[in-house]
Amino acid sequence: MKVNGTPYRTVWRDGTTVFLIDQPLLPHRFEIAKFPRHEDTARAITTMVTRGAGAIGAAAGHGMAQVALEAPDSGFEAYVRAGAKRLENTRPTAQDLFYAVQRVMAACLKALPDVAAARQAACREADTYAEENYAAGEQIGIVGAPLMVRRDGGPGPVRIVTHCNAGWLAFVDWGSALSPIYRAHRDGKEVFVWVDETRPRGQGARLTAWELAQEGVPHALIADTATGYYMAKGEVDLVIVGADRIARNGDVANKIGTYTRAEVANALGIPFYVAAPTSTIDPDCADGSLIPIEERDEEEVTWVRGVNDAGELTRVRITGEGTRARNPAFDVTPNRLIKGIITEVGVFEASPEGIGEALKKRRF
Amino acid sequence: MKVNGTPYRTVWRDGTTVFLIDQPLLPHRFEIAKFPRHEDTARAITTMVTRGAGAIGAAAGHGMAQVALEAPDSGFEAYVRAGAKRLENTRPTAQDLFYAVQRVMAACLKALPDVAAARQAACREADTYAEENYAAGEQIGIVGAPLMVRRDGGPGPVRIVTHCNAGWLAFVDWGSALSPIYRAHRDGKEVFVWVDETRPRGQGARLTAWELAQEGVPHALIADTATGYYMAKGEVDLVIVGADRIARNGDVANKIGTYTRAEVANALGIPFYVAAPTSTIDPDCADGSLIPIEERDEEEVTWVRGVNDAGELTRVRITGEGTRARNPAFDVTPNRLIKGIITEVGVFEASPEGIGEALKKRRF
Repeated sequence: MKVNGTPYRTVWRDGTTVFLIDQPLLPHRFEIAKFPRHEDTARAITTMVTRGAGAIGAAAGHGMAQVALEAPDSGFEAYVRAGAKRLENTRPTAQDLFYAVQRVMAACLKALPDVAAARQAACREADTYAEENYAAGEQIGIVGAPLMVRRDGGPGPVRIVTHCNAGWLAFVDWGSALSPIYRAHRDGKEVFVWVDETRPRGQGARLTAWELAQEGVPHALIADTATGYYMAKGEVDLVIVGADRIARNGDVANKIGTYTRAEVANALGIPFYVAAPTSTIDPDCADGSLIPIEERDEEEVTWVRGVNDAGELTRVRITGEGTRARNPAFDVTPNRLIKGIITEVGVFEASPEGIGEALKKRRF
Repeated sequence: MKVNGTPYRTVWRDGTTVFLIDQPLLPHRFEIAKFPRHEDTARAITTMVTRGAGAIGAAAGHGMAQVALEAPDSGFEAYVRAGAKRLENTRPTAQDLFYAVQRVMAACLKALPDVAAARQAACREADTYAEENYAAGEQIGIVGAPLMVRRDGGPGPVRIVTHCNAGWLAFVDWGSALSPIYRAHRDGKEVFVWVDETRPRGQGARLTAWELAQEGVPHALIADTATGYYMAKGEVDLVIVGADRIARNGDVANKIGTYTRAEVANALGIPFYVAAPTSTIDPDCADGSLIPIEERDEEEVTWVRGVNDAGELTRVRITGEGTRARNPAFDVTPNRLIKGIITEVGVFEASPEGIGEALKKRRF
């Protein structure tokens, strides 16, 4: 997608260096951060310089390419395995992270004992994951755009709730939840997006609002507390969110707060969609109760980042000094609340049968 | 309640001056603000120097006493009626505001043509409202404490979700939703409170967490997005919130986000209680759809207040410069989602019958 007219991707690699759009600086500053070694890339994932299922996957894939490029000829495999472990230990919930690391490692080790070929295979596979992620995002838009419809069949904009950021910043490009919105908008359909703030890190307020503004999609930011109000008032036609991991039975782990929106949408008869590439499905995970939920630092809740009146990027503590917080980063939405899972190969029921079908149809 | 060992009330009047705990400064600074004339008190309500149903009611009642004390002998009634209008125009949703203003005005005008007696009657009635609010808060604690029980009947703390601040800072003292928690805690029952942050103004993070800490009640702050997660995990025994207005059919207007919690609690079988003095019931309001919902300034969403690393009270903008926001301050929870309404005269069903009974039992 374009930033002030120039096309960008969220993550890329040039030689041994990984480049990431520095997301904690957004929307206040647009900067590209460089990571020369795989340890730097791993740290960038942990500290959320990049975040979002596909972007984490691509960064980890390119990180594995860095591992292969750094690895000494003697002890190559051990170095590669240790690097994979380090990259996998950055964050626990996003399936694409493990998917990309395992895929690049498998391609790499398969080329052994030819170390040069193994390095080349790792780089190629990392690029392939990134390309597939790009293509999947674009395709999710095409598959999902026809579902962007008003519930009353009437005129006026389709009013959509999204949570967190599952836009192009969360992927290599295009995004998952926002891709059908971008596609519908580019096709001339009138859309309006209620952007949840998404505390504690404010990915909605900071990233989704910024993305939509860059693309010219009408939207309004709301506090996370206000989503149900607009749903109950009849001002929401559908909810669409991304996914960090999809279990074999169709349960979905996604940003904290997703479950609540699904439960309220269900009570009110509002369709609730999940959009994700099939790489987000974890075939080894029987149901949502088995997905590990990351708990992050409590300072993410008690301190808020932004720009002060002088325009300087800074932070404020919103609580008293001694206040303790809990900070789970994801929750699980049970399959019964999900109307459909929009993937690059079609829309599937959130059920063992639907997920089975999606796995059969996926191309990689 | 006590602040660092000294007993305080949230609102009081001494002669012609109204005193309020300056709530936007909390928890960072504890200061008392003074308001010499009724216009100042009205502005303090609009700008939320004080907030919360009962505290607004008491401030407005004392504001009416100021009106009567300021009013010239000739043109007394016109001045009183204009002052009442001004105080009523400060905020649209909280029933106690209108209740207190009308009550003090009625007592005042009844004493006419004796202007001195009318002034005295206004002051007396304002004090009576405040005393009743104090007593109702204390009594709600006694009535509600036995409902603070674990769902599993097992040992360990009763785990309670509350939203916004319906503690003593929202009343003259004691509070509504927090009063049963304080009572249970003082009686030696083990309780643990999940404190919702309550964006956009953070009354949970700033006020409820501070109140609970002052009283020594174990608690943890969570982002508004995390409440459903802990509910679904089985770590919530009940939800208890306050009310800004209760309709005749038992529908309840309260802080934005309340409805969502009620809907999720209902889906999971978790009891959802509303606690409020009977003065919060609006007998002229047939159901929740008729309650006016205040929409406040969008900067409350896009800017966040707190202290910076240097300890200075300041604010940061969390969004890009052009981001527009919507900011409804309340929502309506339909009676079907409410397990019971805890008042100073008993626990009532959220239904026309239950509210009718509460109105019959109220003492004023």
